[in-house]
Amino acid sequence: MFEQMITNVRNNVPLVHAITNYVTVNDCANIILASGGSPIMADDINEVRDIAAISSALVLNMGTLNERTIASMLAAGTTANQCGIPVVLDPVGAGASAFRNKTVLQLLKEVRFSVIKGNISEIKFLAAGEGRTSGVDACEADKVTEVNLGSVADFAKSFSKKTGSVIAITGAIDLVADHEHVYAIRNGHPMMSKITGTGCMLSMVTGSYIGANPGDILRAAAAAVCGMGLCGELAHKRLCELQGGTGMYRMLLIDEMSKLNEKILEEGANYECIER
Amino acid sequence: MFEQMITNVRNNVPLVHAITNYVTVNDCANIILASGGSPIMADDINEVRDIAAISSALVLNMGTLNERTIASMLAAGTTANQCGIPVVLDPVGAGASAFRNKTVLQLLKEVRFSVIKGNISEIKFLAAGEGRTSGVDACEADKVTEVNLGSVADFAKSFSKKTGSVIAITGAIDLVADHEHVYAIRNGHPMMSKITGTGCMLSMVTGSYIGANPGDILRAAAAAVCGMGLCGELAHKRLCELQGGTGMYRMLLIDEMSKLNEKILEEGANYECIER
Amino acid sequence: MFEQMITNVRNNVPLVHAITNYVTVNDCANIILASGGSPIMADDINEVRDIAAISSALVLNMGTLNERTIASMLAAGTTANQCGIPVVLDPVGAGASAFRNKTVLQLLKEVRFSVIKGNISEIKFLAAGEGRTSGVDACEADKVTEVNLGSVADFAKSFSKKTGSVIAITGAIDLVADHEHVYAIRNGHPMMSKITGTGCMLSMVTGSYIGANPGDILRAAAAAVCGMGLCGELAHKRLCELQGGTGMYRMLLIDEMSKLNEKILEEGANYECIER
Repeated sequence: MFEQMITNVRNNVPLVHAITNYVTVNDCANIILASGGSPIMADDINEVRDIAAISSALVLNMGTLNERTIASMLAAGTTANQCGIPVVLDPVGAGASAFRNKTVLQLLKEVRFSVIKGNISEIKFLAAGEGRTSGVDACEADKVTEVNLGSVADFAKSFSKKTGSVIAITGAIDLVADHEHVYAIRNGHPMMSKITGTGCMLSMVTGSYIGANPGDILRAAAAAVCGMGLCGELAHKRLCELQGGTGMYRMLLIDEMSKLNEKILEEGANYECIER
Repeated sequence: MFEQMITNVRNNVPLVHAITNYVTVNDCANIILASGGSPIMADDINEVRDIAAISSALVLNMGTLNERTIASMLAAGTTANQCGIPVVLDPVGAGASAFRNKTVLQLLKEVRFSVIKGNISEIKFLAAGEGRTSGVDACEADKVTEVNLGSVADFAKSFSKKTGSVIAITGAIDLVADHEHVYAIRNGHPMMSKITGTGCMLSMVTGSYIGANPGDILRAAAAAVCGMGLCGELAHKRLCELQGGTGMYRMLLIDEMSKLNEKILEEGANYECIER
Repeated sequence: MFEQMITNVRNNVPLVHAITNYVTVNDCANIILASGGSPIMADDINEVRDIAAISSALVLNMGTLNERTIASMLAAGTTANQCGIPVVLDPVGAGASAFRNKTVLQLLKEVRFSVIKGNISEIKFLAAGEGRTSGVDACEADKVTEVNLGSVADFAKSFSKKTGSVIAITGAIDLVADHEHVYAIRNGHPMMSKITGTGCMLSMVTGSYIGANPGDILRAAAAAVCGMGLCGELAHKRLCELQGGTGMYRMLLIDEMSKLNEKILEEGANYECIER
């Protein structure tokens, strides 16, 4: 079902405007290209409105948040809203500092997001205005498992209803939900957490996919999550053959995204639509 | 003819000062090293004059332009001019926003450039003060082809005469021109546009080459363009053997630059001097 | 003797807070992960105190110094001191500009460092408040050799006594000293200087190691230097097999760090404790 999404990305080459952190920005630009989009990473307040207005999607990533780019995020986000351009929020480290918490709540108030993507700790913080995070990883106690899957799915639907955004919660099992439907996705590999930027890269791929499929944000986001996870699996398989480490894994992950096509996605996607 | 250029780079190890964007800065530093130079990426207004003054070449790249680094670019550029140090301009995305357009025209007014390198849309914007760009790629309508090669060559010579700069226009066919001579270069590979930063990296290699060959800017710039394109071809050949994707291609491109020598360049360079 | 250090890193997963340059920050985050730690690269003045306070170690790297992050470095450094969290200083390019020189002397005055790591030119500048550096590489005249090893070791002990910091001087031979003991380490490979960021990465690995071994800073820092050098050797061996260049070398270096374990370190570590 997700295959058409990828075809649309490859055919439309969506221009993805990202305001993001300086740690993983190169991988972000390269994975946008690999996914079939075209990246533009402008972040100065003097031009972000111009750039957002000509883009197919906007991605706001809070990784290395600073005062200069917060103003740019707000300006680009409101412009995108005015122009009807879909916006992705990646609330990296929400909960980790007062500054980060205040900023993410301001972004939620002033910008309407098509997709909010984070780990369970980050999303719980957004929903509750409170939470516990350490660094940028999810807390052990919060993790999505087969046992709590149903209750987390209900939480995701409820938060989607509140925000009007598609909610993507990443973890060993990924959930992608709107106010009615929830996809549980079982693609991915634990090694994805051994390199920096897999979460950031997923938000970029989500930008590509919703930029090329603006009429079906839920399924476009789910396809992006499926696709990224599948690339993580395929990269790990290749890594074992090549006996590489984490440096090589990062390279292979982008390799697999650049090779991903309808057929590979159809064969490898592992998801279900949870009915409740 | 370009072989001596590369020997001079390897022997002189030019210190290349780059003020550049945060997307591709790591690849830029690594390709300066791979080309035989030594990179220094200082960009604070409080030290760029000191650093420019001790460098062999300065490269100004407008990728992720912001107010803080514009002031640094102007300060470093004027210092380099005073010290007789060659300066490269890479006007990334010129035409894409009013802020970018205003900045590039100010740079052109206040700094003398030894080389201006961009795609045809960017260079046309600089020449005309107008133009159409989308993202950072050249418009389809503007692209250099065998059909319009002659007229673009004339344009390049004319813009070189106006600015006093060597003009490098990149595309499927690359042109490198001063006010009298034009080299048409047919090295390169389409896959170079599937990763971010090949344009940025070329401006850095150009910095290395003109830093080590300040007496022959035209041929040094042409050698850099040839060398970079050739590395793109060789990297693609190796990529096919290894069945890799775009992640691997980025790595192999830097690999090939680090292996480039007189003999490889002599055998692989594909250029002609256009007489008109 | 260093093997226990690595076990403690793998078991404790220290959170390493780094305020660093934008050139090598991705490699820095990835090598922290590869070494067994967890990176967090927050650098805004509004949150660095919060982040430093929850970290296991703080690393301050002066690569692309700017006014915004200097304030953040001072705030994070003093917070870490108050919380008893070990701090690493990497004074990249000390001596290269008046701005850089003033800043590093201010950092030394206001923050107590557990480890100061630099090349001999940088460390000499810190010790003397004067020196000659060109770019970010050590001057030929200053390099540590078998001939001057003893006198450099005495200098390192004396500077350690003055500062209360463990001093790590990197070069063909590395020295790691406190006021009483000096380790001379003969791991490493010349190719490490052909890519950007090996020095930065070492300061990050040092952060991981002292974060997980706060009771034995000297030996933790020496283990980090040994481990990084050994990874440089192993990566070069693999590079020869794969016939790669500098792009591949950078990847393999991180690969080897992710594979490093007690056994590999025990077999490959090449150090002596100099008695004087």
